[in-house]
Amino acid sequence: MLSQTPRTAPKTKSDRVSFDRDEAYAILDEGKICHVAFTTEAGPMVMPTIHWRVGDRLYFHGSHGSRMGKAMAGGDICVSVTLVDGLVMARSAFHHSMNFRSIVLMGQAEEVTDFDEKSRIFDALMDKLVPGRREYLRPMKDKEVNATKLLALTIAEGSVKSRQGPPGDVEGDESWPVWAGVLPYALTAGEPIADDLVPPGMVTAKP
Amino acid sequence: MLSQTPRTAPKTKSDRVSFDRDEAYAILDEGKICHVAFTTEAGPMVMPTIHWRVGDRLYFHGSHGSRMGKAMAGGDICVSVTLVDGLVMARSAFHHSMNFRSIVLMGQAEEVTDFDEKSRIFDALMDKLVPGRREYLRPMKDKEVNATKLLALTIAEGSVKSRQGPPGDVEGDESWPVWAGVLPYALTAGEPIADDLVPPGMVTAKP
Repeated sequence: MLSQTPRTAPKTKSDRVSFDRDEAYAILDEGKICHVAFTTEAGPMVMPTIHWRVGDRLYFHGSHGSRMGKAMAGGDICVSVTLVDGLVMARSAFHHSMNFRSIVLMGQAEEVTDFDEKSRIFDALMDKLVPGRREYLRPMKDKEVNATKLLALTIAEGSVKSRQGPPGDVEGDESWPVWAGVLPYALTAGEPIADDLVPPGMVTAKP
Repeated sequence: MLSQTPRTAPKTKSDRVSFDRDEAYAILDEGKICHVAFTTEAGPMVMPTIHWRVGDRLYFHGSHGSRMGKAMAGGDICVSVTLVDGLVMARSAFHHSMNFRSIVLMGQAEEVTDFDEKSRIFDALMDKLVPGRREYLRPMKDKEVNATKLLALTIAEGSVKSRQGPPGDVEGDESWPVWAGVLPYALTAGEPIADDLVPPGMVTAKP
C-alpha cells in the first residue's frame, strides 16, 4: 500500500481513491510520460518528462544542465501520471465526465551516480520503451551513461484515483432522448515510419 | 506571442521551444486534460484536471469543496498540457526520444462567479468535448451552474516545447543493422459504448 497522509486523504469522491500498490504500478508502467512539479523561487513549476519504474523506485533522466534536473535533485517533488480512458457522455452537460486512471506521488528525488547502477537502470528504460529491442542496438558508451543525469524517487507517499464505467445520470434525466454512454480513448500506436537509412525489407520491432 | 521571462527562457535544446500563440492554442485545444501544479504548506502538488480555452483564457472547473479548487483560486499555478506523438527509435539507446508537443503556462487563476458568464463558459466546455451535442442535452439547471466552481487563467506567460521527426543518430551509428524510425502515437477514440438506458437504434454522436 502507498502511505496515506493528510495530503493524500481524499476530500471529495473518496470512492475514486485507492492506495493499492499494484494499481499504482500498473498506471506508472502503462504511462509514457509523467508531469513533475517542484517549487522554484518564482513559484510552482510543472514539466512533462519520461519516467520508468524498477521495483519500488521511479526514475527520471535528463541532461546535467537542465532546469528540471537541477530543481528535482534533493528537493520536494510531486509526480503525476494520468491515463485518459474515455469520455463519459451523460444526458446533461453537468454529468459529463472523463474515465481515467491517475496517480500522484510525493517525495524527494535523489541523484543516482554509481556507474553500474545507472547502466542497469537505463537498460530498464529501454526495456520499457520497446521490450526486446535493446540487444540489437549499438551498445551504450560510458560517456553516454556519464552524460545523462539519473534521478530516483522511492514510491511511498501518494494515491491512485480513477473513474470507470457509464455515465451517472440522475433520476428524471434517464429518459431524456439523447444517446449516452462512453466513448473510449486510448493512446494507440500507428504504423512505424522508417527513417531514410533503413535498408528496404528490414523488419520493424513494433512495441 | 506568449511572454518570455527568465523562467520560460530555454536552458537547453532551445530549438525545441516556441512562444507562438497559435501553436500554444492548438496544443491546449487538442489536449483532453492538463496537469496543474500549485504550492501547498506541505510542498509542491500536481493534479490532472480537464481544461478548456475561450479566447485568451484557460478554464478549469471543480466542486467548491475540492482541494485543487481552493489551492488554485488566487494563488500561483503552473499548468502543462502534453501530447505524446511518437516513440523515436534510434540505433542506440542513448538517442531514443519521444515526439511530443507540450505547453507550460504560469499565472494566477481567478474564480469566475458571474452566473451568465459561467453558463457561457460551461457551454464552451461542452462544445469542446463533443461539438454539436449540447443542443440535444437536458438543459443546464441554475443549481448546477452554482454548484460548480469555475477558475480562469489568462494565457500570458509560458512556452511551447516540441520534438518531431526521425531519430537523430550520430555519425558512426548510421549503418548499425537495426530498424530505426518513429512509432507514431495518438490518443484515439474507439467504438462508443451505449449505457443501458439508450433505446435500440438511437444514433451516437461521435466526437
